[in-house]
Amino acid sequence: MRLACLQENLKRGLALAGHAVAGRSSLPVLANILLATESGRLKLAGNNLEIGITALVGAKVEEDGAITIPAKLLSDLVGNLPNDTVELEVDPRTQTLTVTCRGTKANIKGIDADEFPAMPALGDEPVLAYIPAELLRKVVGQVVVAAAAENTNPNPILQGVLIRLSGTQATFAAIDGYRLAVRTIELPEPVAHDAELVIPSKAMAELGRTLGDSENPIAMSITPNGGQVIFHSDTVDFVSRVIDGKFPDYERFVPPASNNATRSVISTAEFSRAVKRIALFSQAAGNIVTLTMERGDGSEPGRLLLNANAAEIGESVEAISALINGDDGKLALNVRYLQEALGAIDTDQVALETQTPNSPGVFRPIGGDEYLHLVMPMRIP
Amino acid sequence: MRLACLQENLKRGLALAGHAVAGRSSLPVLANILLATESGRLKLAGNNLEIGITALVGAKVEEDGAITIPAKLLSDLVGNLPNDTVELEVDPRTQTLTVTCRGTKANIKGIDADEFPAMPALGDEPVLAYIPAELLRKVVGQVVVAAAAENTNPNPILQGVLIRLSGTQATFAAIDGYRLAVRTIELPEPVAHDAELVIPSKAMAELGRTLGDSENPIAMSITPNGGQVIFHSDTVDFVSRVIDGKFPDYERFVPPASNNATRSVISTAEFSRAVKRIALFSQAAGNIVTLTMERGDGSEPGRLLLNANAAEIGESVEAISALINGDDGKLALNVRYLQEALGAIDTDQVALETQTPNSPGVFRPIGGDEYLHLVMPMRIP
Repeated sequence: MRLACLQENLKRGLALAGHAVAGRSSLPVLANILLATESGRLKLAGNNLEIGITALVGAKVEEDGAITIPAKLLSDLVGNLPNDTVELEVDPRTQTLTVTCRGTKANIKGIDADEFPAMPALGDEPVLAYIPAELLRKVVGQVVVAAAAENTNPNPILQGVLIRLSGTQATFAAIDGYRLAVRTIELPEPVAHDAELVIPSKAMAELGRTLGDSENPIAMSITPNGGQVIFHSDTVDFVSRVIDGKFPDYERFVPPASNNATRSVISTAEFSRAVKRIALFSQAAGNIVTLTMERGDGSEPGRLLLNANAAEIGESVEAISALINGDDGKLALNVRYLQEALGAIDTDQVALETQTPNSPGVFRPIGGDEYLHLVMPMRIP
Repeated sequence: MRLACLQENLKRGLALAGHAVAGRSSLPVLANILLATESGRLKLAGNNLEIGITALVGAKVEEDGAITIPAKLLSDLVGNLPNDTVELEVDPRTQTLTVTCRGTKANIKGIDADEFPAMPALGDEPVLAYIPAELLRKVVGQVVVAAAAENTNPNPILQGVLIRLSGTQATFAAIDGYRLAVRTIELPEPVAHDAELVIPSKAMAELGRTLGDSENPIAMSITPNGGQVIFHSDTVDFVSRVIDGKFPDYERFVPPASNNATRSVISTAEFSRAVKRIALFSQAAGNIVTLTMERGDGSEPGRLLLNANAAEIGESVEAISALINGDDGKLALNVRYLQEALGAIDTDQVALETQTPNSPGVFRPIGGDEYLHLVMPMRIP
């Protein structure tokens, strides 16, 4: 392999592919980035066996070839080179990559490209759906938060995000047993056929970071055996494994709106800031924050009170004005879940729908997209 | 105690005093901030027995009093309040502070102010010297780096920074056995009397951060027993303990300029960037970087070569053009010390003076302030 490319392009490609490089692995090649010439361009790929990312970089290729190089060392070196032409040359005999740029000449030891795990080829499968990139990034931010963390829940399906494709709609959902997030979006064109699949939430989060700023819609395909999903943009391919199993029938957890005893409409920003302050006390009180919804009478508006009482450090109360419909109400929530629910709402106002202290709180954006975030209650002490 | 003050003033005062609060301590009161009324203002103080910082904040005092409150909780709470009037009230019976601001009302449990360590009173001692604040910050950044870290050198005096006051000059020096940094500054007026004292380098670093942006010169005083030094600005007092003992006679380590076999003048920015790249390889090679100074002949300018050879990951060479006076030369340095030496040079060009491969390298700014940074050589393998 012998080629020349611009430092800034190489740096960007390494950063993209680097998202899929294993931090620590028993297999040294997984900590490497694959460099390979492909159709007159430089292909950079990372693969940690959970996800794989391939980025294409414009290059002047003089000789084809491939090698894998420690990702961190190469990224750090290229990131610190001046923005000038970088020459890359592989000595196949010693499996060494020589990086030359102005006064810098570095020889880096690599591993044979044959040892790098195979990845599904780009654009081989028919496209199942097109998803606008910006929307994908936003959806990921709203849904992934409700998936179970790897170390807290042994059920692998709860560590995933459901993607349900039907007609011109895509629904994304995650549920960890304590909360549920569901977001539905309209697609620019109908899907090729209805489908349902579950992708690891960590892969989804990485997908949002990697492809979120693409210009054109992301093309989504599934490998013939159904084991992997590919998200394809103009210059980047993102591959993730699919989680086997049946996603819970989450709809039965959402109480019908007709059951709501109390519906409160609150400024999202004020609510979030108050929660941030009360959290300082809740954290020392088993993470419990108590919400009290008080209807206003004729002369006064309604209000939402947040209480936390930590025996060791003190107690605090926050009062926020709110538009309350229905009865007075009370609910205790985990303050971290409350923070994350509000963090997923991007409209000025949020609605909180509650039934009894033993029913979940349901958060919805006001006048925004179709999104629901449900949090199970804690026992009021 | 009962008073009102503005959130942004309280926040700034807590941040300043917070620099002196103990992160972890067996004495709970050291993790607290002292709040006390003083001459119609609010005094905030932190003290970790190494340094103490007192900040004064404008306030509308209605009732005098004092209490100590967990620093982190109070800072986090105040930092998240809106920029409005904050009311503080102490219940002396329960030793509780009530913080009220708009919809927020928090009761925080404190510790009696009597348990807080005493600090030298403000402005009680005669002023020894005035040091311009901005200069103090800069000097601290250039000198502290060469002091021994707490965990690497058992000699406490080497963990300190020498301050030598004489006439209208102040000299700051630090030496850890591997390198030496010396900076001399001119003072706006003569010192009250010549003096020499050694201050813990961690305290010096904190001093730069805390007082570096004061408008007026910092007044420096020493307590009558010589055990503490006070740096006094308009709104902040900084107290540090003084390290007992004799600072090494560092001047004997500086080779006379007449001995220099090679003097190289290099662009500081280019040198720094090249070192950052070569460090990626040096770090896997016992931190060794080899410097080779090559005089130009008539047609070519001289150059400085940096080499690192790490058996496991590869090797690299950086070539930088340099103005070389004297003989060709060679020197091996610890790459981290080289990075930190260049980081302390703030002029466009730096001079590197070398004698033999067994003599130190001496770095000086070109056309800048009176500063010297000496690094001991490593054995060239």
